[in-house]
Amino acid sequence: MPPLIVDIHTHVYPPSYMHMLRARKTVPYVHDPANNATPRLIILSSDDDPSIPVDQRGRPVDSSYSDINVKLAFMRRHGINCSVISLANPWLDFLEPDEAQTWAERINDDLEATCARVNNDADPNKTKALHEKETLFAFGALPLSAPSPDIVVNEIRRLKSLPHLRGVIMGTTGLGKGLDDSRLDPVWEALQDTESMLFLHPHYGLPDEAFGGPEATNRYGHVLPLALGFPLETTIAVTRMLLAGVFDRFPRLKILLAHSGGTLPFLAGRIESCILHERKFMANGGDVPGPQRSVWDVLSTNIYLDAVVYGTAGLKAAVTAAGGSDRLLFGTDHPFFPPLGKDDEEWPSVTTNYKAIHKAFESEGDTAAGVLGGNAARILNLK
Amino acid sequence: MPPLIVDIHTHVYPPSYMHMLRARKTVPYVHDPANNATPRLIILSSDDDPSIPVDQRGRPVDSSYSDINVKLAFMRRHGINCSVISLANPWLDFLEPDEAQTWAERINDDLEATCARVNNDADPNKTKALHEKETLFAFGALPLSAPSPDIVVNEIRRLKSLPHLRGVIMGTTGLGKGLDDSRLDPVWEALQDTESMLFLHPHYGLPDEAFGGPEATNRYGHVLPLALGFPLETTIAVTRMLLAGVFDRFPRLKILLAHSGGTLPFLAGRIESCILHERKFMANGGDVPGPQRSVWDVLSTNIYLDAVVYGTAGLKAAVTAAGGSDRLLFGTDHPFFPPLGKDDEEWPSVTTNYKAIHKAFESEGDTAAGVLGGNAARILNLK
Repeated sequence: MPPLIVDIHTHVYPPSYMHMLRARKTVPYVHDPANNATPRLIILSSDDDPSIPVDQRGRPVDSSYSDINVKLAFMRRHGINCSVISLANPWLDFLEPDEAQTWAERINDDLEATCARVNNDADPNKTKALHEKETLFAFGALPLSAPSPDIVVNEIRRLKSLPHLRGVIMGTTGLGKGLDDSRLDPVWEALQDTESMLFLHPHYGLPDEAFGGPEATNRYGHVLPLALGFPLETTIAVTRMLLAGVFDRFPRLKILLAHSGGTLPFLAGRIESCILHERKFMANGGDVPGPQRSVWDVLSTNIYLDAVVYGTAGLKAAVTAAGGSDRLLFGTDHPFFPPLGKDDEEWPSVTTNYKAIHKAFESEGDTAAGVLGGNAARILNLK
Repeated sequence: MPPLIVDIHTHVYPPSYMHMLRARKTVPYVHDPANNATPRLIILSSDDDPSIPVDQRGRPVDSSYSDINVKLAFMRRHGINCSVISLANPWLDFLEPDEAQTWAERINDDLEATCARVNNDADPNKTKALHEKETLFAFGALPLSAPSPDIVVNEIRRLKSLPHLRGVIMGTTGLGKGLDDSRLDPVWEALQDTESMLFLHPHYGLPDEAFGGPEATNRYGHVLPLALGFPLETTIAVTRMLLAGVFDRFPRLKILLAHSGGTLPFLAGRIESCILHERKFMANGGDVPGPQRSVWDVLSTNIYLDAVVYGTAGLKAAVTAAGGSDRLLFGTDHPFFPPLGKDDEEWPSVTTNYKAIHKAFESEGDTAAGVLGGNAARILNLK
């Protein structure tokens, strides 16, 4: 039996979303160069540099971003049986309040329809096992800029009625003030109540000043914002949730952290030490409640990590921090990080993670198989 | 024979430095409360919050910061034989250009005199082995705000004539523009040429905006700036050095990174992947040189890591990224992170790291002994 390989970190911009981005002139937007070259996607504020001609800003965005057949070909080329697709950043964060609900429903219905069609085409008589076909499931998008959190809660509940939806994807701004905002409590409650997985993903990075100002940030292309800004953003977001007691109030919340938790597995010990030494927290005589549960408890209970960390060092920290490998899940970050050479070759960004998983767990029996697909199938009920 | 335990991450504010801080009214400064309570040390910009009465700003700074006898007692209580002391942040970064050289020489001569006196007191006849006494060595401070890098270079060369100096400690701003500033090349050259260890340590953290603004940053006391801002600052600084080709131009540079590299061991794979996918670099057809040596090569050649990471997850990432444990070095971060309870108890910030080292390497023979002291004695020539 071929191994089951599930990709839980793989993004799409559905055609309707691309159409919306083409109509925009501020980040995020898609620009079609005059010479009929590949369209440009400008999604990071650091991309929108006025000193760069607009035809060269951002990154080329080919059909891999919006054509599901290109993703299916990518899956076949890399031996992936099943992908849990999600809208790519910045999702619906930038929408006007009165558009958010409509767009969330439209995108999520699009995702459901795409999954249903692909899965039916792959297995019209529903006789094949998961590893014998290419199938799709999805994480839905949320209307976070809607006028009321109730609209977000309603969409979380509605997603449970869509057969191929398996949770939601979300950035780190929440309702605009970060994930330690108490106005998010109804959202956490709805996610916990519906047993929905929350895929927490970065987009906003860090202020340019963190890297030495805009000049320093841009000097090395996307490396500083993507290699460091993204994972640090995730780490800050989830630490703020922890410090605000979100995991104390919602102890059954399930959160899948992008890029193996940003840097959370590595910094967990330091975070815990700083909490235990913080005079401001009530446990130490201060007047701020502080978290009740430890970082380690949350890491081994509420948090799931993707294995998109490009090396054995990160994987070892991830499984050590989580107390085991059963919540570590393979992913690719497709269609980002394509090879810079020929279109038809294997993607180094994918093979690096495959190799790291095999090397990190070579002496541990079925661990690699779990990380590559078994864990995802069990946790997300993929069948 | 008792084990040799060397603490390579342990700070002092010599009395002359404390005197200087007392005369200041802007960060960094020391404030003596009117009621004769313990003086307050205000060293982080986030500490200097005008909404907090000045008597309560920052942290209490007792004699453990400046009285070397308190450090010796701390060493005895925790079984530490040898400490490589360093001036605590923010070192001499804030000095006016014309004061920098004088203060660097004064501080470094103070450090040398303290080490000489303590070591002579402990072993007047020079007959004891390193593990039979408490001894001190030191990392020197640099006059980075001096009018010319030549003054920094001269101090690096002068330190080689001081018998107890074993390298230098430095923050992440360099000459004011970060560590990828080409004006630092003479400094790197002098460090390489004299085979001096550079202990790279954070101080400036991240802009408040990274944590959601000043209100969010301060909401949880020091946790966000210390637990996340510090390690992220270190990671950004060393990544900028790498991207600017510092390790290509100075391939024998030796850098000890505080807090196990900030997050570098965990993010090394992602950094390398982003470099390989960056269109701006010449290797990928762009016009920016980009680094020639890989992150992994630098991690296993130039970089040394302290073991101040408070957990096995971080330690496993550190040794995996470095390709072994022979450049991993025990440290305490004393006198920071004191216990919040009784003065005379063991420090949990120290015992957490002891326990993590023993647990991470319990099945690996002499590895723990190397990390606890053997590596430091060999690398820094402590005898």
